[in-house]
Amino acid sequence: MEQKPYVIGLDLGGTNSEFGIVDRNAHIVASTRVKTAGHGDVTQYVDDCVAALQPIIEQVGGIDKIHAMGIGAPNGNYYSGSIEFAPNLPWKGKIPLAQMFSERLGIPVRLTNDANAAAMGEMQYGAARGMQNFIMITLGTGVGSGIVVNGQMVLGCDGMAGELGHVIVEKDGRQCGCGRKGCLETYCSATGIARTAREILEKTDKATSLRNIPLDKVDGLAITLAAREGDAVALDIFEYTGRILGEACANFAAFSSPEAFIFFGGLSKADDLIMKPIQKAYDENVLQIYRGKAKMLLSELDGAGAAVLGASALGWEVK
Amino acid sequence: MEQKPYVIGLDLGGTNSEFGIVDRNAHIVASTRVKTAGHGDVTQYVDDCVAALQPIIEQVGGIDKIHAMGIGAPNGNYYSGSIEFAPNLPWKGKIPLAQMFSERLGIPVRLTNDANAAAMGEMQYGAARGMQNFIMITLGTGVGSGIVVNGQMVLGCDGMAGELGHVIVEKDGRQCGCGRKGCLETYCSATGIARTAREILEKTDKATSLRNIPLDKVDGLAITLAAREGDAVALDIFEYTGRILGEACANFAAFSSPEAFIFFGGLSKADDLIMKPIQKAYDENVLQIYRGKAKMLLSELDGAGAAVLGASALGWEVK
Repeated sequence: MEQKPYVIGLDLGGTNSEFGIVDRNAHIVASTRVKTAGHGDVTQYVDDCVAALQPIIEQVGGIDKIHAMGIGAPNGNYYSGSIEFAPNLPWKGKIPLAQMFSERLGIPVRLTNDANAAAMGEMQYGAARGMQNFIMITLGTGVGSGIVVNGQMVLGCDGMAGELGHVIVEKDGRQCGCGRKGCLETYCSATGIARTAREILEKTDKATSLRNIPLDKVDGLAITLAAREGDAVALDIFEYTGRILGEACANFAAFSSPEAFIFFGGLSKADDLIMKPIQKAYDENVLQIYRGKAKMLLSELDGAGAAVLGASALGWEVK
Repeated sequence: MEQKPYVIGLDLGGTNSEFGIVDRNAHIVASTRVKTAGHGDVTQYVDDCVAALQPIIEQVGGIDKIHAMGIGAPNGNYYSGSIEFAPNLPWKGKIPLAQMFSERLGIPVRLTNDANAAAMGEMQYGAARGMQNFIMITLGTGVGSGIVVNGQMVLGCDGMAGELGHVIVEKDGRQCGCGRKGCLETYCSATGIARTAREILEKTDKATSLRNIPLDKVDGLAITLAAREGDAVALDIFEYTGRILGEACANFAAFSSPEAFIFFGGLSKADDLIMKPIQKAYDENVLQIYRGKAKMLLSELDGAGAAVLGASALGWEVK
């Protein structure tokens, strides 16, 4: 049987749904974008997506050239192919999105959560090529994770494993959107670091260029720019954030002894500013038998196409 | 080819090395025991073990009836078949024990750490039959763990994964033998609960039958007996211990979303006294999407043969 040369990847986010048609060399040969909200019900959303896809599918020679489709979405469940109770998407309850796209397009469709998709992409195309055991940490609005053990995604009994952003790292710590307190995400997400900045700015009198910005505008990017200029308070904020992340990773190592931790998105763009404190706290806190084994790496899938590539990697999983 | 009917299991502990010949129905048909220490070097230890095994091997019809051997040992590395830097064994450094037994017996030998062996046993013969995702927690002198994901042991990049007893659950908490502070093991092992008892007894004036025992003799068994009589302080000690364990398991769920946590050894014998506080703290602390999914189970391999059965399960892994 002829091997079909392309897969479709969909990175489904709260704002945009980004589609790419991807070849076996990880090139996005065609792409399109649909707003995620504003379609009425989810059936209309899928119809509108399929309409938007038609021209780029024709561009590569028609649907017969497409092997399969992969979707990365918040709260995506690989086993059921459904999005389950995603707080930031317009549809409530369980949405069998893989099945809906499969029926409309006539090709197999796989779906998983966005962090798992990122891990798949990293394994197929990025920093985790050839690795059998690694942990992907996505630092965005929230903190997500995709865990690979023995070359396979860790999905758990319910398809929902790998929520390391909701490991409690500080008892009675910061209030989390999940209803509990002290989750990793409340410290190391984009909102977490902004919260740290506000706390530190309110607590200290130290001179810092961050005071030139309205307090509610002090975000990851502003802190990064200040830190690059050597601003001591901005550096303190990265030290604090990286330490919490490094300590958490030291605990995660006791679980799966990964070959690498791979950091993706938002804060990871601060590069050494965050990676050095992570590495330092990790080395100081990890159990001796693991010391020096796991590499701390940045994603090699930077740029807008990364999440689409990650989702598309799922498509190649279809045999 | 005729299927050979038996495997040898070796539970290698700090005091005794327990051998069993096990059939496919998990019956230990013959057994023997050798002291672990006192043999001079490890070569002599293996020679003495093989000599002790000869009569029971003859008893089942000779070595041709033995499919393979499995060893569970502290700090056992599945990949290398070696024991690596085990603090409580008489041999230092890396000991290629699987290879040594294999050369002397002429059969394949697999080795892993004792908690992984317990998990294998539970999957093959016990409470985890049919499960693809579970976490075994062994509560002994230390706290060990064996993690199964997608039906496979989690071994990590180095064969040493699954040391959940050394997850730090309390920052700047109790001093652990590993050199760090606040490890789960310092609270939930046999020595951990004794330490809790001493702390609580010194801190409170509450009447308790535990004061009738010399402070250095207050151990898990004494606390269990008092708690069964309704002793309020003994019950407090279990509440405290179970809460820490339940909170830790809630964090572990975010990793692999297991179908069950299975508790084995020492403290687990206290049954409801420890299991109820574990369950309560777990339910209160686990992320909502996991709530009600993982069962909290006791090992079904209680009794002296359990560890031998667990080790023997490794033997059946040999194809």
